[in-house]
Amino acid sequence: MLGFTGEFLGTMVLIILGVGCCAGVNLKGSYAKGSDWTFVCLAWGMAVTFGVYVAGNFGSQGHLNPAVTLGFAAFGFFPIKSVLPYLLGQFLGAFVGAAIVIIHYEPHFQAAKSSAEGNSVGIFATGPAIKNPLYNFLSEMIATFTFVFCLLNLGDFTKGLQPLIVGLLIMVIGQALGGTTGFALNPARDFAPRLAYAILPVPNKGDANWEYAWVPVFGPISGGIAAAFLQMLL
Amino acid sequence: MLGFTGEFLGTMVLIILGVGCCAGVNLKGSYAKGSDWTFVCLAWGMAVTFGVYVAGNFGSQGHLNPAVTLGFAAFGFFPIKSVLPYLLGQFLGAFVGAAIVIIHYEPHFQAAKSSAEGNSVGIFATGPAIKNPLYNFLSEMIATFTFVFCLLNLGDFTKGLQPLIVGLLIMVIGQALGGTTGFALNPARDFAPRLAYAILPVPNKGDANWEYAWVPVFGPISGGIAAAFLQMLL
Amino acid sequence: MLGFTGEFLGTMVLIILGVGCCAGVNLKGSYAKGSDWTFVCLAWGMAVTFGVYVAGNFGSQGHLNPAVTLGFAAFGFFPIKSVLPYLLGQFLGAFVGAAIVIIHYEPHFQAAKSSAEGNSVGIFATGPAIKNPLYNFLSEMIATFTFVFCLLNLGDFTKGLQPLIVGLLIMVIGQALGGTTGFALNPARDFAPRLAYAILPVPNKGDANWEYAWVPVFGPISGGIAAAFLQMLL
Amino acid sequence: MLGFTGEFLGTMVLIILGVGCCAGVNLKGSYAKGSDWTFVCLAWGMAVTFGVYVAGNFGSQGHLNPAVTLGFAAFGFFPIKSVLPYLLGQFLGAFVGAAIVIIHYEPHFQAAKSSAEGNSVGIFATGPAIKNPLYNFLSEMIATFTFVFCLLNLGDFTKGLQPLIVGLLIMVIGQALGGTTGFALNPARDFAPRLAYAILPVPNKGDANWEYAWVPVFGPISGGIAAAFLQMLL
Repeated sequence: MLGFTGEFLGTMVLIILGVGCCAGVNLKGSYAKGSDWTFVCLAWGMAVTFGVYVAGNFGSQGHLNPAVTLGFAAFGFFPIKSVLPYLLGQFLGAFVGAAIVIIHYEPHFQAAKSSAEGNSVGIFATGPAIKNPLYNFLSEMIATFTFVFCLLNLGDFTKGLQPLIVGLLIMVIGQALGGTTGFALNPARDFAPRLAYAILPVPNKGDANWEYAWVPVFGPISGGIAAAFLQMLL
Repeated sequence: MLGFTGEFLGTMVLIILGVGCCAGVNLKGSYAKGSDWTFVCLAWGMAVTFGVYVAGNFGSQGHLNPAVTLGFAAFGFFPIKSVLPYLLGQFLGAFVGAAIVIIHYEPHFQAAKSSAEGNSVGIFATGPAIKNPLYNFLSEMIATFTFVFCLLNLGDFTKGLQPLIVGLLIMVIGQALGGTTGFALNPARDFAPRLAYAILPVPNKGDANWEYAWVPVFGPISGGIAAAFLQMLL
Repeated sequence: MLGFTGEFLGTMVLIILGVGCCAGVNLKGSYAKGSDWTFVCLAWGMAVTFGVYVAGNFGSQGHLNPAVTLGFAAFGFFPIKSVLPYLLGQFLGAFVGAAIVIIHYEPHFQAAKSSAEGNSVGIFATGPAIKNPLYNFLSEMIATFTFVFCLLNLGDFTKGLQPLIVGLLIMVIGQALGGTTGFALNPARDFAPRLAYAILPVPNKGDANWEYAWVPVFGPISGGIAAAFLQMLL
Repeated sequence: MLGFTGEFLGTMVLIILGVGCCAGVNLKGSYAKGSDWTFVCLAWGMAVTFGVYVAGNFGSQGHLNPAVTLGFAAFGFFPIKSVLPYLLGQFLGAFVGAAIVIIHYEPHFQAAKSSAEGNSVGIFATGPAIKNPLYNFLSEMIATFTFVFCLLNLGDFTKGLQPLIVGLLIMVIGQALGGTTGFALNPARDFAPRLAYAILPVPNKGDANWEYAWVPVFGPISGGIAAAFLQMLL
């Protein structure tokens, strides 16, 4: 159960900070409105850093990401029996985190009447810069492959200052490979906030773009498995 | 008394660097004029980092923040008898820090004739992006909750490179959750510089917006207590 | 052979992240389109950081750069017999990394019809801001000299958090000395992606600017050798 | 003599990276042209980081700054007999560093015909945003006081990752207090490059603004001494 608690709290922190950043950048009237891609990548990176610190302090391995958990488990880097509590913690934590962001930015959701004023599912979930399912899938797979492959070569990433390094890794993945699909990298990070946006009472909300939702689920999982496979081979 | 000295000096450094940044970003003619939200978040983050280093070196725990001191004390993470010297050091240090920033930027305060030229209480204290007392209070509470909850899971944050991590935590809180109320997170950081602005001879000064001043006092304290309560439960 | 594997994988990661960043900044429709020089320097810095982590974990010294390998080897800081596998790993890894970036950004290459829309060899290889072969060569030599001289004074840079420091070194070299020639600093980083651009099927591609290609090969090598020579003297 | 060598090489690296950044930001045609205050503060911060690494590795204490050396020496934090070799190394290193930047950016100095095109002493030395000798002096004194006071509470700052922390300290000082006078903080950093600009053959050069040169010499020294005095008292 420790695994569940840590992953739940860590992913909750990750999404409060990460989706919070996207709300701040997009919503009408926010002080962070219009911040650039550097800002977004840095904030998501540090969101992961503090999610990992929290998760690690509650005894989980700080995956915060089904693509990591499944990739690690597929090739013996993680015990199979812990997969389910980890995944559950990740999806539930991400959902609760998204709900907290909605409360936090409530007056801004009310003020932003449309997607033109920044009120769209893009705050909660990723979407492609150029719609092209095959290449969007490949993009998420390549980005997550690169992320998980580096992660596997960092050693225990919850100890000491390693959570900072993991955060900087997410940042640079976002800078380098996020230009195409917005670097979901993580099924829980994308699916659960999208669901929260769809079912919770967000003022002036638009379409949840479910049609795209499979890409940031299966792309990252494929990339995570590919990275763990390569690591095992080597 | 060590606690008082460390908190006084640390909070003084925090406010010199943090309020100094806001003066530089806002005041007419400053080289940093017009810098973006990334700049503000990064500077406040590093302001905390060096405040914590200084406070830690003088033997205090480097709270620099009544919301941290009261939150920690409420659930046994900090001795009750040290609360008063800590709070006193924090408010006095913040006031002196604000006074030093006024001297530092004196010619720029003289040059900036109005709030349109950046001369306003916004340099010294926070204000809401959208005025809504209930949600502004909730925003400060949620942001401080997230901050203090992460802090409680970082271990002793004055040792080694941990002050850097605390600074990056403030930075990402500002990026993710600062868009609504400007991330006070800290009653001393907001109240004492606001008081300094109100009673010291700042050239061309405007209104101190006292009407709003309760939010960045009670919101952060509530958030800090909530975070310590959750941590104790878990 | 460990040396080859580590250098191959590390340089591959370096180029995926570094050239990936340049694709994201330049190509039409990318979310990172138009990001500033800070973004580019930070991304290349962190690209090196994670390249070094990966290479170090596979047992190589994490040079990822013929100018480092040759400079170190020229004055006894590195065994001559390992030079060839290192260089081979670096050039091959850079080529494969560039190929992965092409797949990743495929729809954006298709959308960007010309160099005016960001589709040019500048994504893959450097070029001079002001064409002047002698001074362009000197620029690359000075920048690489400064880089390698600092590197030689960092100790073993694959251990602990040192890869982060190496990455920040690259970042500040790019900020300070990259304004002239785009800080190649590294023959493999420039030559192999340029070759990839020239021979792989990149949509709408332009000229590979081979005429300039000698500068980012021989400038960095000269600078690396000069730095190692100075270090040996001192 | 070790002290001289370390301070010479460290200050040379500091100025190559710091003045190099200012050249890149200002000179016509540079890729870094027009970069913002964040960029400048970050680059100067990291310039100090790598200057300290180099100096520390050659056995000096990595002051790179007469205001630090004199402040420390005035109250027993540094041996008097080492003051002269340290100061000599700092001024000479800064001069040589500035000369290297001139060569590096030669074609850009040639292309920039006037101060309107970025070719001015501002690349090499600081100047006030609002001319006011008394307050400019106070600004440099306050900024250096804050810098040196924090520095004295960091412990040995050449070891481990401490040079990074010193660099981030410079960065945030620049962000918070650099808006008024451009944060010289350091007589060698200002005087020696100004001299280099004045006497070396820089194309299209303008006035060296010697009238202001006393401020960034005596302001920092006063601030450094004040900080060491306060530290000694406490």
